[in-house]
Amino acid sequence: MSARLLRAAAARRVLATSTVTVSRRTDLGTVTDADLAAFVGICGDDGVVRDADEVAAYNQDWLRKYKGSGQLVLRPSSTDQVSQILRYCNGRRLAVVPQGGNTGLVGGSVPVFDEIVLSLNRMNRIIEVDDASQVLVCEAGCVLETLDRHLAKSGFTMPLDLGAKGSCHIGGNLATNAGGIRLLRYGSLRGNVLGVEFVLADGTVVDTMSKLRKDNTGFDLKQLMIGSEGTLGVITKVAILVPRRPTTAQLAFVGVESFAKVLEVLKRTRGELGEILSAIEFEDRASFDMVLNHLPGAHDPLERSYPFYMLLEASGFCEESDSTRVGDLLSDLMDRSLIMDGTIAQDKAQFESLWKFRESITECLTKEGCVFKYDVSVPVTRMYDVVTDMRQRLSGVIDEQHVCGYGHLGDSNLHLNIVSQTYSPDVQRLIEPYVYEVTSSLKGSVSAEHGLGLMKANCIGYSKCAASIHAMQSIKSMFDPNGILNPYKVLPDPAHVTPNRIPLSAPLPPA
Amino acid sequence: MSARLLRAAAARRVLATSTVTVSRRTDLGTVTDADLAAFVGICGDDGVVRDADEVAAYNQDWLRKYKGSGQLVLRPSSTDQVSQILRYCNGRRLAVVPQGGNTGLVGGSVPVFDEIVLSLNRMNRIIEVDDASQVLVCEAGCVLETLDRHLAKSGFTMPLDLGAKGSCHIGGNLATNAGGIRLLRYGSLRGNVLGVEFVLADGTVVDTMSKLRKDNTGFDLKQLMIGSEGTLGVITKVAILVPRRPTTAQLAFVGVESFAKVLEVLKRTRGELGEILSAIEFEDRASFDMVLNHLPGAHDPLERSYPFYMLLEASGFCEESDSTRVGDLLSDLMDRSLIMDGTIAQDKAQFESLWKFRESITECLTKEGCVFKYDVSVPVTRMYDVVTDMRQRLSGVIDEQHVCGYGHLGDSNLHLNIVSQTYSPDVQRLIEPYVYEVTSSLKGSVSAEHGLGLMKANCIGYSKCAASIHAMQSIKSMFDPNGILNPYKVLPDPAHVTPNRIPLSAPLPPA
Repeated sequence: MSARLLRAAAARRVLATSTVTVSRRTDLGTVTDADLAAFVGICGDDGVVRDADEVAAYNQDWLRKYKGSGQLVLRPSSTDQVSQILRYCNGRRLAVVPQGGNTGLVGGSVPVFDEIVLSLNRMNRIIEVDDASQVLVCEAGCVLETLDRHLAKSGFTMPLDLGAKGSCHIGGNLATNAGGIRLLRYGSLRGNVLGVEFVLADGTVVDTMSKLRKDNTGFDLKQLMIGSEGTLGVITKVAILVPRRPTTAQLAFVGVESFAKVLEVLKRTRGELGEILSAIEFEDRASFDMVLNHLPGAHDPLERSYPFYMLLEASGFCEESDSTRVGDLLSDLMDRSLIMDGTIAQDKAQFESLWKFRESITECLTKEGCVFKYDVSVPVTRMYDVVTDMRQRLSGVIDEQHVCGYGHLGDSNLHLNIVSQTYSPDVQRLIEPYVYEVTSSLKGSVSAEHGLGLMKANCIGYSKCAASIHAMQSIKSMFDPNGILNPYKVLPDPAHVTPNRIPLSAPLPPA
Repeated sequence: MSARLLRAAAARRVLATSTVTVSRRTDLGTVTDADLAAFVGICGDDGVVRDADEVAAYNQDWLRKYKGSGQLVLRPSSTDQVSQILRYCNGRRLAVVPQGGNTGLVGGSVPVFDEIVLSLNRMNRIIEVDDASQVLVCEAGCVLETLDRHLAKSGFTMPLDLGAKGSCHIGGNLATNAGGIRLLRYGSLRGNVLGVEFVLADGTVVDTMSKLRKDNTGFDLKQLMIGSEGTLGVITKVAILVPRRPTTAQLAFVGVESFAKVLEVLKRTRGELGEILSAIEFEDRASFDMVLNHLPGAHDPLERSYPFYMLLEASGFCEESDSTRVGDLLSDLMDRSLIMDGTIAQDKAQFESLWKFRESITECLTKEGCVFKYDVSVPVTRMYDVVTDMRQRLSGVIDEQHVCGYGHLGDSNLHLNIVSQTYSPDVQRLIEPYVYEVTSSLKGSVSAEHGLGLMKANCIGYSKCAASIHAMQSIKSMFDPNGILNPYKVLPDPAHVTPNRIPLSAPLPPA
C-alpha cells in the first residue's frame, strides 16, 4: 500500500475507546526520507527511533486507551536540538507530540495519527541544587522521583508528589500542571515554578530561567506553558522552589461511617493540624476493595469494614509536638464518633503500606477491567453526590462496586472511576457527557488535574466561558500559527464546542 | 488656549523627576463633550469626576514623583459599567489608566498625559467568604486591610500583607502581582488566586471566577492579568485562597554585626523554624536611623547600635511549642555570636511597635527627602553588595546614610533607596542605568515586586530576553489592539529597548 493510500485509510479515526472523533488535518505533512536524514543530522542516529517495536511504546498511553500510528520518535539531547527539530518541522508542517514520561490519563502525550513523537527522555540532567535560594534547576526529562531522591541528600523535597512519580517527567508535570497529594501543603506549580526554558513551534528558545522568587518584569510567559499540555511550546528546562524536607511525619488511616462525617473530619483536621497538615485523602469502600483484591499482600488494617476511609498526614520538624497534635486530633474525632476506628503508622514500613491503600488504587483498577476515568473538581460538600448519582444512573449496567470514588479531599478533587468489562461505547454514552453536565452545573471543573488532552478537548466549554476559549484559541494561533504542536488536543474542534452547555436532564443540582 | 494647542504643549513630556521621555501618542483621541455625556449615561453623575481638585488626587502618585494631566475620572460601580466604558473608549481610541488604591511606586497607576482614570474604588463589595473551600470572593476595589479584618471574624487571613495595606486594593495587588512580607509563608499570588473576572479593552467580560483549587481546563488566562499592570485588561472580581489565621505569633528584633552573619541567621532560622516561619526581614543601620529620626515616639529597642537588624517572625497554632522553638533558635544564634542582642515582643503592642521599625521605613524616607527607589532581586549572597557598591559610586554626592538597604531577605528582595535633596537628574544618571546593569549582570530582576510601570518600561531588557519581550508585545497587541489600556507602561518604546544589555563599566560581579 502506498503512503498515499495509508494516509487515506488513517485519515478519519473513530477512536475505539472513546466517543472522540477527529479527522487527520490535511494541511499537515508526512515524514519523507529527506526529513529522516535531516533529523539524523540534528539528533544523531541515537536520537532517531524508527524500530516499530520501540516506536509502539511511545504510541500508546499506559492505560492502553489511546493509540496513535506515529512511525518516528525523536530523542534530542539538548535545547538546541529541540529548537532545530521544531524549526524544521514547522517549515515542513510536520506535526509533533511532545512526550515526557507518558503517564498522562487523557491521551495528551501520544499521537492521534502519524505525528512525530518528541521525547524528552534523554534530557534528564540535574543542573543545580541551590541551597541558599532553595531552588532546583534541571532539564525537563528528569523523573520526579529521581529528583526527589537527589534532593533528599541536601535536606530538600519536591513540592509535588503523585502516583506516577516513578515514571513521570518534571517537564510533563509542568506541561499538565500536575497536582497530586502535596498541593494542599506546598501549593500549586504556578507558585512553585520560578523559571522555565521553552521552545516555540518556530524553534525560538524563550529563556525565562529565573531562580528568583520575585520577578515582576512584564507578563509571566512561563504560566502559559504550565498546563498547556505541549500545545504552545516544548518545555526544556525548569527551575523550581524546593521546600525543606520534613524530618518527621505522622500518618493515620481511619474508617468513617458517612460522607457527612468525612466532611466534618476534614474541617476539624484542617483546624487542628493547620500548617503541619500535609495530606488529607479519602476513598470509598469500592476503591478500598479494589486494593484489597488486587494489591499483592494487602489486608484490611482495621477490624471492621467502613463505607469511607481517610488518610490524614502531618509532617514537620518537631516529632514530639506533631505526634501530640495528631494524637489529640484522633482522640477528639473518636470522642465525637466522627471516626470509628483507625491506625497510626508506627514505622516507615507501616507508613508506606498505609499509603499504598490510596496510591495503588489507580493501578488496581486497571487489573479489574477497563476503566473510565474522570477527574473533576466540585464544591467539597457536593463531591460524593457525583458518585452516588452516577451509581444510580448506571444501575443495571455497572454494579455499585465498580463505580469508585476517591481523591484529594482537601482540594475538592474527586477521581470518579468506572470499571467496565470493555471500553464499551454504550457505557461511555451513559457516562458522558452526563458527568460533565453535572460538574458544570455545580460550577466545577471537568478536569481538576489531569488536563484535557484528546479526551476532553471538546469538553472545555463545560468549565470555561466562550470568551476564554476564544482568547485561548488566539493565543494558540499566536504561538503556533501552523498548528504543528500536539494537534487535536486541549482546544476544541470548532464544530464540537459546547460553551456553557447547561444540562438538560441532570438530576443532581440543586442540593 | 484651544484644546489643540494644549495638546501640542503637552505632546512631548520630559518628566521632571525621571529620565523617562515619552511622547503622547497621536493615534489616541481626546475627550469631548459628547464623550462626557456618554460616560454620564453609563456611570451616572456620581461615577464621572471632573472637578479639578478631585481629579488632581488621581493624577499624582503618592510619592509625588509622577504627575499626569488627566481631566476625567470614571468610577464605575459594576462590571457591566466597566465593560461599557471600555467598549466606548476602545471605539473612540480614548486611553484609560485603571487605578486601584494608587499606592504603586513605579508610576503605573497615574496618567502620563491626558488618559482617563478608571478608578475601581466604588467596586468594593465583599461577595462571599466560603468557609468550606477557604476562599474569599470580592470585587477588585476592596482595600486589602479591610478584607483581612473581615476575614479575621471567621478565622482566616489574607495570604499577602504589605505596607500599603490600608490603601491598596486587591485588584491592584493582582495587577501588580504584589509580594510583601507574607510571600515567604503563603507563596505568591500566582498560587493563591483561584479566579479572576476581567474586562478586555473591547469590553469583553472574561469570567474565570473559579473557586476551585484545581482546574486544568485550558490555558490559565488569569495568570496573564496577574502582574500585567492594567495593560491587558481591567480586573473586576477576585477569588482567592485564604489561609487559617494563625492564633499565635512570635516576633524577634535582633542586631547583627555583618551581612555575612545576616545570611547565616537566615539559613539557621529557615532550618529551625521551617513551616512556622512567617517573615524574615532585614534592614541596615541607615534604614533603621530613618525610622528613629522620623517616626514619632520611636526609640532604639536595643542598647547598642548595629550595622544590621533583622525581624524574625514565626506564627502558628501552638503557642507553647512555637515559643520554645523561637527561644531555642535565639539562644543558639547568641551562642554562635551570630546575633549580638535582641528583643522578643511580649505583647501585641510590642509586636506592632517592633514591626514599625520595618514597615515605616518607606514613609520615613519620604520625610527625609526625595527618594530614588529601586526594588531588585539578586542572589541573596550578593544582595548587600549592591548597596555598598552604590555607596561607593555615589560618594561625594550622596552620603552613606542616605543610601539605604532593606527588604524581604527570605525572598532575596532588596529595596535600595537613595535619598536626595531633590529629584536631581544628575543624581539619577549616576544611579541609572548602573543599578540595572549590576542587577542584570547578577542575573537578577530589575523589579522584584513593584512592577515596571512608567519608570522601568524601557528597562525590561535587563531582566527579560528579546524573545520574551517580543512575545509580550504580541500578547499586548492581541488583547488590546488599539493600545488604549495604560499606554506608555510596562512594555518598552521600541526605540528604547535594551534587551540583554550587558554592563560596560559595572565593577560588581564577579564575586
